[in-house]
Amino acid sequence: MSKNIIIINGPNLNLLGKREQSQYGSITFEKLKENCLNKAKELKINLNFYQSNVEGELITAIQKAKEKFDGIIINAAGFTHTSVAIRDALDIYKKPIIELHISNIYKREEFRHKSLISDVATGGIFGLGDNGYILAIIAMQKMLENENR
Amino acid sequence: MSKNIIIINGPNLNLLGKREQSQYGSITFEKLKENCLNKAKELKINLNFYQSNVEGELITAIQKAKEKFDGIIINAAGFTHTSVAIRDALDIYKKPIIELHISNIYKREEFRHKSLISDVATGGIFGLGDNGYILAIIAMQKMLENENR
Amino acid sequence: MSKNIIIINGPNLNLLGKREQSQYGSITFEKLKENCLNKAKELKINLNFYQSNVEGELITAIQKAKEKFDGIIINAAGFTHTSVAIRDALDIYKKPIIELHISNIYKREEFRHKSLISDVATGGIFGLGDNGYILAIIAMQKMLENENR
Amino acid sequence: MSKNIIIINGPNLNLLGKREQSQYGSITFEKLKENCLNKAKELKINLNFYQSNVEGELITAIQKAKEKFDGIIINAAGFTHTSVAIRDALDIYKKPIIELHISNIYKREEFRHKSLISDVATGGIFGLGDNGYILAIIAMQKMLENENR
Amino acid sequence: MSKNIIIINGPNLNLLGKREQSQYGSITFEKLKENCLNKAKELKINLNFYQSNVEGELITAIQKAKEKFDGIIINAAGFTHTSVAIRDALDIYKKPIIELHISNIYKREEFRHKSLISDVATGGIFGLGDNGYILAIIAMQKMLENENR
Amino acid sequence: MSKNIIIINGPNLNLLGKREQSQYGSITFEKLKENCLNKAKELKINLNFYQSNVEGELITAIQKAKEKFDGIIINAAGFTHTSVAIRDALDIYKKPIIELHISNIYKREEFRHKSLISDVATGGIFGLGDNGYILAIIAMQKMLENENR
Amino acid sequence: MSKNIIIINGPNLNLLGKREQSQYGSITFEKLKENCLNKAKELKINLNFYQSNVEGELITAIQKAKEKFDGIIINAAGFTHTSVAIRDALDIYKKPIIELHISNIYKREEFRHKSLISDVATGGIFGLGDNGYILAIIAMQKMLENENR
Amino acid sequence: MSKNIIIINGPNLNLLGKREQSQYGSITFEKLKENCLNKAKELKINLNFYQSNVEGELITAIQKAKEKFDGIIINAAGFTHTSVAIRDALDIYKKPIIELHISNIYKREEFRHKSLISDVATGGIFGLGDNGYILAIIAMQKMLENENR
Amino acid sequence: MSKNIIIINGPNLNLLGKREQSQYGSITFEKLKENCLNKAKELKINLNFYQSNVEGELITAIQKAKEKFDGIIINAAGFTHTSVAIRDALDIYKKPIIELHISNIYKREEFRHKSLISDVATGGIFGLGDNGYILAIIAMQKMLENENR
Amino acid sequence: MSKNIIIINGPNLNLLGKREQSQYGSITFEKLKENCLNKAKELKINLNFYQSNVEGELITAIQKAKEKFDGIIINAAGFTHTSVAIRDALDIYKKPIIELHISNIYKREEFRHKSLISDVATGGIFGLGDNGYILAIIAMQKMLENENR
Amino acid sequence: MSKNIIIINGPNLNLLGKREQSQYGSITFEKLKENCLNKAKELKINLNFYQSNVEGELITAIQKAKEKFDGIIINAAGFTHTSVAIRDALDIYKKPIIELHISNIYKREEFRHKSLISDVATGGIFGLGDNGYILAIIAMQKMLENENR
Amino acid sequence: MSKNIIIINGPNLNLLGKREQSQYGSITFEKLKENCLNKAKELKINLNFYQSNVEGELITAIQKAKEKFDGIIINAAGFTHTSVAIRDALDIYKKPIIELHISNIYKREEFRHKSLISDVATGGIFGLGDNGYILAIIAMQKMLENENR
Repeated sequence: MSKNIIIINGPNLNLLGKREQSQYGSITFEKLKENCLNKAKELKINLNFYQSNVEGELITAIQKAKEKFDGIIINAAGFTHTSVAIRDALDIYKKPIIELHISNIYKREEFRHKSLISDVATGGIFGLGDNGYILAIIAMQKMLENENR
Repeated sequence: MSKNIIIINGPNLNLLGKREQSQYGSITFEKLKENCLNKAKELKINLNFYQSNVEGELITAIQKAKEKFDGIIINAAGFTHTSVAIRDALDIYKKPIIELHISNIYKREEFRHKSLISDVATGGIFGLGDNGYILAIIAMQKMLENENR
Repeated sequence: MSKNIIIINGPNLNLLGKREQSQYGSITFEKLKENCLNKAKELKINLNFYQSNVEGELITAIQKAKEKFDGIIINAAGFTHTSVAIRDALDIYKKPIIELHISNIYKREEFRHKSLISDVATGGIFGLGDNGYILAIIAMQKMLENENR
Repeated sequence: MSKNIIIINGPNLNLLGKREQSQYGSITFEKLKENCLNKAKELKINLNFYQSNVEGELITAIQKAKEKFDGIIINAAGFTHTSVAIRDALDIYKKPIIELHISNIYKREEFRHKSLISDVATGGIFGLGDNGYILAIIAMQKMLENENR
Repeated sequence: MSKNIIIINGPNLNLLGKREQSQYGSITFEKLKENCLNKAKELKINLNFYQSNVEGELITAIQKAKEKFDGIIINAAGFTHTSVAIRDALDIYKKPIIELHISNIYKREEFRHKSLISDVATGGIFGLGDNGYILAIIAMQKMLENENR
Repeated sequence: MSKNIIIINGPNLNLLGKREQSQYGSITFEKLKENCLNKAKELKINLNFYQSNVEGELITAIQKAKEKFDGIIINAAGFTHTSVAIRDALDIYKKPIIELHISNIYKREEFRHKSLISDVATGGIFGLGDNGYILAIIAMQKMLENENR
Repeated sequence: MSKNIIIINGPNLNLLGKREQSQYGSITFEKLKENCLNKAKELKINLNFYQSNVEGELITAIQKAKEKFDGIIINAAGFTHTSVAIRDALDIYKKPIIELHISNIYKREEFRHKSLISDVATGGIFGLGDNGYILAIIAMQKMLENENR
Repeated sequence: MSKNIIIINGPNLNLLGKREQSQYGSITFEKLKENCLNKAKELKINLNFYQSNVEGELITAIQKAKEKFDGIIINAAGFTHTSVAIRDALDIYKKPIIELHISNIYKREEFRHKSLISDVATGGIFGLGDNGYILAIIAMQKMLENENR
Repeated sequence: MSKNIIIINGPNLNLLGKREQSQYGSITFEKLKENCLNKAKELKINLNFYQSNVEGELITAIQKAKEKFDGIIINAAGFTHTSVAIRDALDIYKKPIIELHISNIYKREEFRHKSLISDVATGGIFGLGDNGYILAIIAMQKMLENENR
Repeated sequence: MSKNIIIINGPNLNLLGKREQSQYGSITFEKLKENCLNKAKELKINLNFYQSNVEGELITAIQKAKEKFDGIIINAAGFTHTSVAIRDALDIYKKPIIELHISNIYKREEFRHKSLISDVATGGIFGLGDNGYILAIIAMQKMLENENR
Repeated sequence: MSKNIIIINGPNLNLLGKREQSQYGSITFEKLKENCLNKAKELKINLNFYQSNVEGELITAIQKAKEKFDGIIINAAGFTHTSVAIRDALDIYKKPIIELHISNIYKREEFRHKSLISDVATGGIFGLGDNGYILAIIAMQKMLENENR
Repeated sequence: MSKNIIIINGPNLNLLGKREQSQYGSITFEKLKENCLNKAKELKINLNFYQSNVEGELITAIQKAKEKFDGIIINAAGFTHTSVAIRDALDIYKKPIIELHISNIYKREEFRHKSLISDVATGGIFGLGDNGYILAIIAMQKMLENENR
């Protein structure tokens, strides 16, 4: 039976392609979504692609994922470094989680070097551009296939 | 005349009973609410039991409490450690506040040892499980009875 | 052609005049808004005056400002010290930004001494009371007039 | 069969009622003891109420409690922040422990914000005045009734 | 009766217009002085415009201001971050003080993020270029008009 | 023309499969090497798979890679957190670099949370088990295909 | 009427004259006591000279001083840097307190640079050898004479 | 002539065998004492085996050792990390001192990693269980035999 | 032969009596000087009483003292916490130095708790008001009499 | 059957006897080796005595010990404080490990107070001179005899 | 055409030869000056040798150097570690700067390990005694010859 | 008799001229070596010029220098900031040592600001480019000539 996964995007990611292109590349949010859906189809995965600027809505999305999705890929953007509440929501979720960042957060400001999410995620990918989304889908597919986290 | 109090619950507390039971006990959020309402009735207090995952909604709830409630019992969950804005809202409120935590936050991760709320609260209770809610109601009733904070 | 600017107010500022008057003065939020609109009219600027307690709504307001406003004046209140996401939204905005605080944040708690917004703003004003709003409007008008940031 | 508990009070608590009343209230140590004994009687608990200024005597009291008491309520006062040895004694004790503070230690000096006892206690109560003693007795009674810690 | 104010400039500000123009703009110190005097005249304020590279001379200037001036606007430049003695002199002065910085000190080196003056000043302005001087004069005039600090 | 890449493995990785399996999985170093070579062949990449326990030999391997390889995938193991010299060697190399960790280093000891390599790498993958090697090869192939870093 | 003061000496001071003479001088504890009593007699002060190695006994001595003595001179020795409980006892005492150290604690180990007592004392003397005791008696006499602390 | 040494045991060590056996082993305090006395007899050393929970009594024991014992073996338990006064007493003692810990203090809580005693001791032994006592006696005998510290 | 000493006063001390009286008492600088000269005459000491707001002038005064004075009493005021250069000048001076503070610097801002001068001074007096000057003169006289520092 | 152990010595230990004798004693490396071999023979243990200046060679030696030796005694010298890679190698080794230092590292520079090895070792010995090697052999023999770590 | 350089000396350097000779050598300030002038003559450089104890005078000297000198050699002594204002003056100067220290500042107190000047200087020399002045002149001559900084 | 010195170069310096030229200049390692040998010949010094990427080999080179060379000039490159073992080897060497860096390490990453070598070296030179090597040879020659370190 095919697996269900959700990609959860945090604040400002809806502006992709309108932000600094040196940092984030020139791809738009819509194009990125399309690429992800295509890859998921290719791997026979049902994919939900979600974005919100509101911390509480992201928390609720994670809470609901518990029932409906086999894995979460999360790019929490600015909330990565400040939200204990998102961390808590992820910690309650007891299935595979991949933390994702488009840019290399370790090349940026000091306060971006600390993620509150990393140690409740299964693993993570950073700095590989929008291709990181594709890699995360492949990695998640592999993990679910192996049925162990 | 009977007193009005509100219990404000932060993010993820709606999942109570579905989280690690070693940490939070097996009681569900609905059962907890019922227990609190019963205790309030016994003590002849009007109790409002509120929960939200959204920081801004919690702030608004605290702001509104200023008019309608004689005391606040707050379990801010993950926002305890990160929200200056909730702290500010509580600081404006000039009546008794009890900070509440189900688990013993000092037995957990380092970043949970610092609460931004403690020093604007009247006092607090932690680590006594869901029974902490009942104790907080008793304590609040006593404080209001003494009319001084 | 006349310029458009927006003043964005963060959590609890809606309570102005009901908070500690020693800290914030006795002016109400409504009166403050009126003063700002009058000053803007005098300087022939179109002014939008916005407030929200919800971090995500403030982020969305900043994102939308990119299209519609020539400058942002922001008093992020409690989010000043905790929101990387608001900072990110401001950083994407490539026009003049003035950071504003009614009280002198350096006379207050240690955790208020660090602003996450300052280094993505053009400049700032603090501790000059509600008059700071008027000064910020004058400063913004001047900056836009000079057309360079 | 009725339960036995001990309340252990650390240095300077014998001066209660003679210290700053804004911080500690006006109740005397003798009156506090009386209130506790009354509450215990009401709840059908055998209560021992102990105080010492000597760290080593408090340690010995905790050691002896292992045999004789089903639970410890401890207000370690100034030793809360400095005594690894008291912490060790409590850690060896394998039954319910409630940490208690009359004042809100988080409103006071920085060095009082860190308790060495909290993470070896079951839970704690702070800032609720002398009423905290009564709440602690109720909480302990409840815990012992549930027979699980 | 018209008010008297003094603008006190610290080390290296005499080189304005010869320093990095990206940081400080192209205006010269003499031109800046002229602009300030003009604005003061317009607002019917007597303005004294002072500069020194010597910490002790700045302290003496502040001490003397106590008798002669109704308000101080101070750009302490490099001494902002290191001089407890200037801070002490300002603290003794019991009238309005505005802290001023031409550049945005929060975009610069880490050691410039901490000002020793901020919490003894009434308020401050930073990063708004030489226009900050004009804004400070307006703000000071307003404060003196209101007669309260 | 087909691309050349090298996977450089640091100290103790030769023991893979003999270490804690909960942390690193049960795959042996030899099997991992075989998997990587197979994947490379599939993607038509020439792959060199290297390991050493000696810091200086790893540095020399990186130096030589400058002439011979189009990209480096590096799992520096224990040297990740201590070797400025390896970092310097990577920094001189001006082509794509992927940092790789089998385990989630953020779930482990504090001193493993800081990598000296991250900000000189293009990006990285952590905590996705031995599958991380396969993902890194895919990511590198993609990057080289796009010819821009 | 003549005043009563107590000099309280902490752990190891009984060994004076047997410790490093470069640090503490060659005077014995008995001789020091005699010198102090003589000076007190000369100044018409009743002096009590006390020493203990036990923290709790020192606390009790301070507590009792509240009734019997007009001022405390305290050399808390090693407890200076570690005892919140002694600090608390001194803080309850609402009359003049002089902190005393024979050696210059700032020339010694880092952990001796922080005194927990300084900010609850009226003032202090350090590094002036055994003569510091005489100076403290003179200072206390002067303070009591002025009747204000 | 045969040598005299004292083993000084700090708080809670009297409970040995009743504490966590994973941490401290199953040997009782009485049995440990017996083992030490036997070893001493074998090595022709006069051994005094002392324990107290009271910091001040331990200080007095160390002070008295100056006259009566040629070497001190000390397991200060919880006081290891907090007692400047015990450190001072040991520092005055000018003969060999061995610091001893049954458990490996570096595998335990952060606050146990710092000993205030180590740098005034000659050397130390940790984590080798109750056998550490026997090793310390052998080491002390060797040191005294060599007559140099 | 009679001894020569100098009292060196740092920035803002010339304003004594015009500053906060709660902190510094009501005595004026002129009266303080007179008191000191009288005490010196009584003890048959030649006293020079010096003040400057300029760090470099204080350094020069200390340098010159090397030839002319047998001891320095220094109240470096705000420079106490920031001037390595004054510290260096004092360190070169190889005779008795007493550090002096009128107020109890440990009751004030955090940055006043660290003195750069203490460990190059012989000893110090703080928080004993203007009487501290008299005590310092007595102490210096005693030290010079004993001819050893 | 007799046990096999290895003593692994880190960088610069080959110079023993040529280094500061106050710190390390006068024994040469060759003599130390001889003493150890003699002690081992006496205890019927097969002992291998190894030294290298190269971190990678030490790692390899530890890796190989896994097959051939029942216990490791390691004096990692300067690598004690910097090598995560040696720590990792020791952590993989699942048999008894004793950490050894000739000098008392806590009497030396701050950076020597932190060992990266301590918490993966069974226990340790420091500051007991070259005799520490003999004690470590005895301790290891005892541990192996007891067959439990 | 011959080059012009200035050597700027900070506070207390005028006492050279009168300070600790173990730290600074026995050469006097006058002799050092003579040596420098001779070396400059040999290298056909015009040299100005300046000293002041006053921070502001040093700043002014640096400001004036902008017009008159092709390079600055600066030994800022105690101001090295505290003066942002001197740093700012040097930063405005856009020609070669060499930082100089006679003693090895890294062998001295912790607060001397941080220089505020190093990162605005071209390079520096420390711990090579008065010969460092000669080396700095050679280095400056070389740099000016190469005309690039 | 002519003196023998060795220049020891650490990891990656063999790539000189192939690294960032803005940081290190355009000179190649071979050319640098030639320049040094020429200068040494001119000053009649026997010079050995050594490089290795392996920490242990550098240690061995330093150990051997004890017998064969009168002085060491060391550019430890990346090991400067991480190698306690190289520091130890240098500390055992009891003759002149000059620490050398081509670039200004204080203008670079934070972790390059701390050298573990500085306080065991006699002195150092940084940021003066490849000319620093020539200056170091001159300085060493001068030091050896003076025969004192």
